[in-house]
Amino acid sequence: MGEDERAIREVVDKWIEATKAGDSATVHGLIDDDAVFMVPGGGMFGKEAFEASSEAMRDMKMDGRAEIREIEVLGDRAWIRNFIEIVMTPVNGEPVHRSGYALTIFRKSEDGKWRLFRDANLVG
Amino acid sequence: MGEDERAIREVVDKWIEATKAGDSATVHGLIDDDAVFMVPGGGMFGKEAFEASSEAMRDMKMDGRAEIREIEVLGDRAWIRNFIEIVMTPVNGEPVHRSGYALTIFRKSEDGKWRLFRDANLVG
Repeated sequence: MGEDERAIREVVDKWIEATKAGDSATVHGLIDDDAVFMVPGGGMFGKEAFEASSEAMRDMKMDGRAEIREIEVLGDRAWIRNFIEIVMTPVNGEPVHRSGYALTIFRKSEDGKWRLFRDANLVG
Repeated sequence: MGEDERAIREVVDKWIEATKAGDSATVHGLIDDDAVFMVPGGGMFGKEAFEASSEAMRDMKMDGRAEIREIEVLGDRAWIRNFIEIVMTPVNGEPVHRSGYALTIFRKSEDGKWRLFRDANLVG
């Protein structure tokens, strides 16, 4: 496994751990400023909207895991196919389970760090 | 625009035209044998299952368009972000409209042709 692949796997692990811990500052550091997120049914949004929706869910307990099924590094871009399982538990509510694939493109920034760049999230 | 980008745009155009014409043989020629399709809610399938589902919809009239919003060529891989609108009309039925993004990875094969390799389809 090359250094870049290892670094990208670390980004994914860090993302999941920080999400579970409610550490949104860490998650946001893993997102490229020009990132585009896509969700089913026509929606797309950028980093700011992602942060706003994370903020709106801050009282929810998050659990989950991401299993990287494929990864290809192509210079300063890479793509991964992830299988994601999440459990969201609202305050005083029942846990909600969701799962699905995500196809994600990462970009290696000028600081040498890999960050999420394009994300098609099919979890539902 | 480079030669590869032009070739990939031609694949997308050809895909849409062939889909509208019900020409499944042409569509299938644009799909890598190792392709993986992902759809909302956990599903993934390969080229054979894609062909079976096309066959099941062969009596449906298909219309639509794909608007490439972004494209990046990375050696013998490329990714595109497409906005897709489709109208499916069953025999004696009302047209059904669907739209959404797709994030797609193409692979340049040994024969020099670009084919669909990974596809996250958020149309819904």
